[in-house]
Amino acid sequence: MKPLLSTPIPAAATPSSGTEKFATTVVVRKPYLLFLGEANHYSQAKTAFGLRDWAPEACVGQWSLAGCTVTLELPEMNPAEAAAKGAGSLLIGVAPVGGQVSPSWIPSLFAGIEAGLDIVSGMHTPLATIPGLADAAKAKGVRLVDVRSPPANLPVGTGRKRSGKRLLTVGTDCALGKKYTALALAKALREKGVDADFRASGQTGILIVGSGIPMDAVVADFSAGAAECLSPDAAADHWDIVEGQGSLFHPAYAGVTLGLVHGSQPDAMVLCHDPLRTHIIAAPTFPTPSLKVAIEHYLQAARLTNPNARMVGISFNTSALNDIERAKLFADTEKELGLPCFDPLKTSLNAVVARMLAE
Amino acid sequence: MKPLLSTPIPAAATPSSGTEKFATTVVVRKPYLLFLGEANHYSQAKTAFGLRDWAPEACVGQWSLAGCTVTLELPEMNPAEAAAKGAGSLLIGVAPVGGQVSPSWIPSLFAGIEAGLDIVSGMHTPLATIPGLADAAKAKGVRLVDVRSPPANLPVGTGRKRSGKRLLTVGTDCALGKKYTALALAKALREKGVDADFRASGQTGILIVGSGIPMDAVVADFSAGAAECLSPDAAADHWDIVEGQGSLFHPAYAGVTLGLVHGSQPDAMVLCHDPLRTHIIAAPTFPTPSLKVAIEHYLQAARLTNPNARMVGISFNTSALNDIERAKLFADTEKELGLPCFDPLKTSLNAVVARMLAE
Repeated sequence: MKPLLSTPIPAAATPSSGTEKFATTVVVRKPYLLFLGEANHYSQAKTAFGLRDWAPEACVGQWSLAGCTVTLELPEMNPAEAAAKGAGSLLIGVAPVGGQVSPSWIPSLFAGIEAGLDIVSGMHTPLATIPGLADAAKAKGVRLVDVRSPPANLPVGTGRKRSGKRLLTVGTDCALGKKYTALALAKALREKGVDADFRASGQTGILIVGSGIPMDAVVADFSAGAAECLSPDAAADHWDIVEGQGSLFHPAYAGVTLGLVHGSQPDAMVLCHDPLRTHIIAAPTFPTPSLKVAIEHYLQAARLTNPNARMVGISFNTSALNDIERAKLFADTEKELGLPCFDPLKTSLNAVVARMLAE
Repeated sequence: MKPLLSTPIPAAATPSSGTEKFATTVVVRKPYLLFLGEANHYSQAKTAFGLRDWAPEACVGQWSLAGCTVTLELPEMNPAEAAAKGAGSLLIGVAPVGGQVSPSWIPSLFAGIEAGLDIVSGMHTPLATIPGLADAAKAKGVRLVDVRSPPANLPVGTGRKRSGKRLLTVGTDCALGKKYTALALAKALREKGVDADFRASGQTGILIVGSGIPMDAVVADFSAGAAECLSPDAAADHWDIVEGQGSLFHPAYAGVTLGLVHGSQPDAMVLCHDPLRTHIIAAPTFPTPSLKVAIEHYLQAARLTNPNARMVGISFNTSALNDIERAKLFADTEKELGLPCFDPLKTSLNAVVARMLAE
């Protein structure tokens, strides 16, 4: 599979108020040696599996400790061997409950530094808080990269219309396929020869394409400004496929979503939905909205910064449906809303891509 | 004037996932010695004037350096004299362009510490970055309080309905009177004997009442959670008057606003508007919305977490209108929208308070 990003986000922006240049994206050095620790269940190594599936060209191997029972079916190697094969980073691909770095991994992180690899983490524990690790990295000239930490000095949003086209995935709730939908759309577009980039707004997406901004960790005043940095000016026929975050219908995260909608200025949106989810995950007194209401609210929000924003399709997570149930759901929904329906893991994206590219 | 806060926000919350207690508000120690530096224009000392006007009981005196031409008409005194009169903090009440601490002020900050005062700042320069200041404060047992810095460990929002009543001020734009409207409403309610507290969401408001959360500086994922902490469970007939931030119609800050709307769960909202402002300040390609559209959007947003949210009045900034123009504006607007209109600096709040208290 081709990588999903060909036009890197500029690593620096010039704020309107000065001449200083600020980094506005998190950038990671690919390819990766995927560290699995002592993972003994698939669910602990979701990050590593996601990378193997979506960025196979970025994964030179896996590294397991004694007791690990999970395999990515990649070559097993240590950091020195991975460095010899061109690896740029040792990536922590395992996440135990709580998101902390296990003490048993620490010698492995030092070994990665010793081999000249950057250390990349999505853990809650900042890498620099591990005693000695920052000094070792500095001495070796490698970086400690916490992909949960946003770039410093993000600008405030301006609302200035940018060149190029943008699609944003949005959802009736969190955790129902916005990242996968965006990845699948970027892949489908590139396979058709459309100049398209996946723009990552969360840590797994950042690891997949090697850069992005963890929107949920940005200070609220800079949310829209960060989203503006994430999909910069581009050629008129270029599409940025922006990974959505949160949901306008989530009582905790709607502010993150709205900043991303406003800053992304989407020309097109795809609404992601799980047909079996009746209530917001983690907020069970909040019902999920109807698709019709969700479409109205997202269009209303998006049209503040892009009056031409359109909804171009519905992405369903149909993992719990059989083929007959799925076909009926799609037919009923297409009849009600007049929008193409798809499941990015199971069905063709041709119709939604055609709708998206139609002016 | 009575202070506008009688029920302090609990200084600690217990997150649902554990037993640890986290501070969830910025708390400052009143009363203040207001430091004016070398201010030579009213506009540089807006913070100090706001405090003198809205929290006179919290201001024991002013302290000017040579060259200062501004006066609050408070007794001039140094930190030792202020401490003897019971002052708790030396408050930097002057803000030069850029928001940096001037080197010429630094001896004064050390003098404040030496007198046993906390140092309170809303500057961009964190106080702890001034060489030696943190050590001096520690040695003396006083605090350096940056009111722009939100409390650590704010929780994620839950959407759980809280007891008591809440009013939130919202706006068609930023910087048109949301803080003053909330202060005036809290004052009017308390004068009528209603149990009401002003809840500060920005630095000046925090300084006025002595506690609050600077919402614009909170990480986006925690915006609604912070707003939930800001107006905690209360008696059934208690009103929290929550200071609004930003605007749903601002391309940079709408996410902050939405998090505050959702977390505040307002029973009532007052819409603030400047009738002469045709476009969003600092985003001149964005027109301000009509009052009707703004009311619809705010009610739609608020009803996610409080289905009974109502709009109860319009607060106009009429500083540029004469009495006849103001009367016509109010009459026309009341006829169109059926809502009481007022200017918190010029007219009675009786009608809006009556509407707010009517079920």
